[in-house]
Amino acid sequence: MDEKILELIEQKRFSELKNLLSEMQPPDIAAIFEEAPEKDIPIIFRILPKELAAEVFVEMDSDMQQLLIEAFSDKELHDVIDELFLDDTVDIIDEMPATVTKRILRQTDSKTRQLINQLLAYPDDSAGSIMTTEYVDLKKSMTVEKAFDRIRKIGIDSETIYSCYVTDAGRHLLGIVSVKDLLLNSKDEIIGNIMDENIIFANTLDDKELVAGLFEKYDILALPVVDKEERLVGIVTVDDAIDVLQEEATEDIEKMAAILPSEHSYFKTTVFETFKARIPWLMLLMISATFTGAIISSFEDKLKIFTALIAFIPMLMDTGGNSGSQASVTVIRAISMGDIEFKDILRVLWKEIRVALFCAGTLVSINFMKLFLIDNLMFHNFDVGKEVLEICVVSATLFCTIVVAKIIGCSLPILAKKIGFDPAVMASPLITTIVDAISLVIYFFMASTFLGIA
Amino acid sequence: MDEKILELIEQKRFSELKNLLSEMQPPDIAAIFEEAPEKDIPIIFRILPKELAAEVFVEMDSDMQQLLIEAFSDKELHDVIDELFLDDTVDIIDEMPATVTKRILRQTDSKTRQLINQLLAYPDDSAGSIMTTEYVDLKKSMTVEKAFDRIRKIGIDSETIYSCYVTDAGRHLLGIVSVKDLLLNSKDEIIGNIMDENIIFANTLDDKELVAGLFEKYDILALPVVDKEERLVGIVTVDDAIDVLQEEATEDIEKMAAILPSEHSYFKTTVFETFKARIPWLMLLMISATFTGAIISSFEDKLKIFTALIAFIPMLMDTGGNSGSQASVTVIRAISMGDIEFKDILRVLWKEIRVALFCAGTLVSINFMKLFLIDNLMFHNFDVGKEVLEICVVSATLFCTIVVAKIIGCSLPILAKKIGFDPAVMASPLITTIVDAISLVIYFFMASTFLGIA
Repeated sequence: MDEKILELIEQKRFSELKNLLSEMQPPDIAAIFEEAPEKDIPIIFRILPKELAAEVFVEMDSDMQQLLIEAFSDKELHDVIDELFLDDTVDIIDEMPATVTKRILRQTDSKTRQLINQLLAYPDDSAGSIMTTEYVDLKKSMTVEKAFDRIRKIGIDSETIYSCYVTDAGRHLLGIVSVKDLLLNSKDEIIGNIMDENIIFANTLDDKELVAGLFEKYDILALPVVDKEERLVGIVTVDDAIDVLQEEATEDIEKMAAILPSEHSYFKTTVFETFKARIPWLMLLMISATFTGAIISSFEDKLKIFTALIAFIPMLMDTGGNSGSQASVTVIRAISMGDIEFKDILRVLWKEIRVALFCAGTLVSINFMKLFLIDNLMFHNFDVGKEVLEICVVSATLFCTIVVAKIIGCSLPILAKKIGFDPAVMASPLITTIVDAISLVIYFFMASTFLGIA
Repeated sequence: MDEKILELIEQKRFSELKNLLSEMQPPDIAAIFEEAPEKDIPIIFRILPKELAAEVFVEMDSDMQQLLIEAFSDKELHDVIDELFLDDTVDIIDEMPATVTKRILRQTDSKTRQLINQLLAYPDDSAGSIMTTEYVDLKKSMTVEKAFDRIRKIGIDSETIYSCYVTDAGRHLLGIVSVKDLLLNSKDEIIGNIMDENIIFANTLDDKELVAGLFEKYDILALPVVDKEERLVGIVTVDDAIDVLQEEATEDIEKMAAILPSEHSYFKTTVFETFKARIPWLMLLMISATFTGAIISSFEDKLKIFTALIAFIPMLMDTGGNSGSQASVTVIRAISMGDIEFKDILRVLWKEIRVALFCAGTLVSINFMKLFLIDNLMFHNFDVGKEVLEICVVSATLFCTIVVAKIIGCSLPILAKKIGFDPAVMASPLITTIVDAISLVIYFFMASTFLGIA
């Protein structure tokens, strides 16, 4: 399909191209633009029907949008901007250099310009930054018939018509009426009688992640947003909420892998941006790991006598790290899904300790069998004494490390959240580094005690 | 709020309770039930208005649902089931023991029972398993007015009325009409003229994760699902798509932390279930780590001479592991977001190698400065020769480990996907274990070469 289209572009068979593109979905057309030769892009864009063109424009990445805006005449720019929803215009402006922004704003009327500037002023992670101001508002005293008239009048420019918002003269939100309610009532019914006054709403400055979570919890299609004075200023639609939920999941995953969150998709991020996102944690963790090294150094002389102990260091460190990160990642995700709060910390600890005892018991048994039966009885002469003691030291360390790792892994994210840090940062890499050091301290303590190394 | 309600329950002030609950949202009422004493639950449930009661019932967890069903009379059960959407009924039945399932099915008419059994038969991860069969279907020849009549007639039992599906006599899907289209056209317009024939649809057996991805990509509210013969059999609504996207993100995060995915939220999973989800990978990774130990063992004699080298093992292993997991996690998420496919493998490698060179250069410089300037010049007498060589060995190992870790980290998930494995399994823990072993091999190779340990 894509190849056929690229062929049409190459052969400049634009009317066939137009027919083909008109039957496609906007995101798929935007993908075609990504692959088309740069010089042909403005030409292909111009053959699209006006409304479709605007929908495709929204789906493009910002480089492509900038390229097109620079190729547009003022009239063309005006036409595209005119078709866009206001929140999409704001998203586009957010990504453009100042000169392009100015050109876009010049193509809007003064009222729109004012709204755009207002939306641009909301913090990046607020409900205000993802809302649109184009919705259907109704009055309490309207009949169903009048409501339909109003939907017909302003509905074409609204992002959703299926939720309509009933406001008073001061723009305060009184209730919500869905088009389903309107359709299922007689046309003489008064809106005030059928509107739902149990409203789920957000404030402009609410965290957009929390707002997106409301869509998941309450299965809604749109959410009204009010300002400090409780006046309705916009709505968030479910498609934007989905984008926020997906972005937040990606961000959590990145943080859990010790990466600073990036805004763009993999190939849209430059090598240097990727480097910048990854190096801070790598550096910090590398320096932290030298403490683990220092613990080994302080034990160096004794390790010269018991060199066999060195070989167990990776197994102990890795198993401790894995046990800890299992607990931390589970808890981090549960926090961000709203399943765990600070008040649950004792319940979480109690659960994790029991899981840790099961895991530790199982792993120690397996390890013991492996060391004692396979390594010792099969490959060595059996030397009761020193080697049995070494096996005991390793087993005891393994047991304690797993339990400590699970306790640290489950409690650090909850504590981080409590003091206002992002729990996701307390994931595998940081937990691993902490648990590494602890496991070595336990190991050398056990060795000193059981093997009598003073 | 919650406490006030629990107080009302305790004091059996049911009419006040009814007023309060009627103003709340179903998920919030379900949360109240979680905290109420078990014996009061059926009583509180009975005071809810019929429709609200059904909505609350859907939001409860399966233990609570079972408790209520067992307390219901046949008539009460019938009333609740009658109010539910079919896909919710199927989800509930899926979680119930066989005796309860039978009781539920006895309360449905034979046509519904047949539909339920059909929905139950779809595989767990298929589009069929998340669709509902209650939608508005129209005929091509209808007028807009007739369409509204049909919506009014069957709309109250449909999960969404905003997308209507135009089918022929053989139930084949011909087009989609939104209520917005209907409202913005005159009532005499023929559906066939205004329906959109560019339909995004899914097959019953399509992976539900892919289907949920379509909602994100195309910003749709509902998606028609057709069977093998291309007959319309149901629709998936956006609220169910959001749940799937969130579940899949949780599943990916769990797999990345070496946990088998679980179905329930944190506190709904028993200790033993959590143990079972975590132990397989812990065991496998522990056994793998003994190979790393074996590499150290084979080098044991030489380590007795160069004990200083042991102290760098944690730093090298951790930094390698972190570098590798950054690359793997980034690539895994990009694969699941559809940004990276197998054909991109060389582009990914080329990008990761450049990022690796930057990271390695930076970390080696920092490490070199730390070792050479701080540790060596400040704390020790400076012994040109052996110690400088050791620093070179550590630096060279660090450099190579980071580059190798990034290469392995970015390529394994892509290769796993290619051969049909889940890329998420190739995350931090597995990559760490592999990179650990490789970093030690590099380390000892460098040490043998530079320090002349033969």
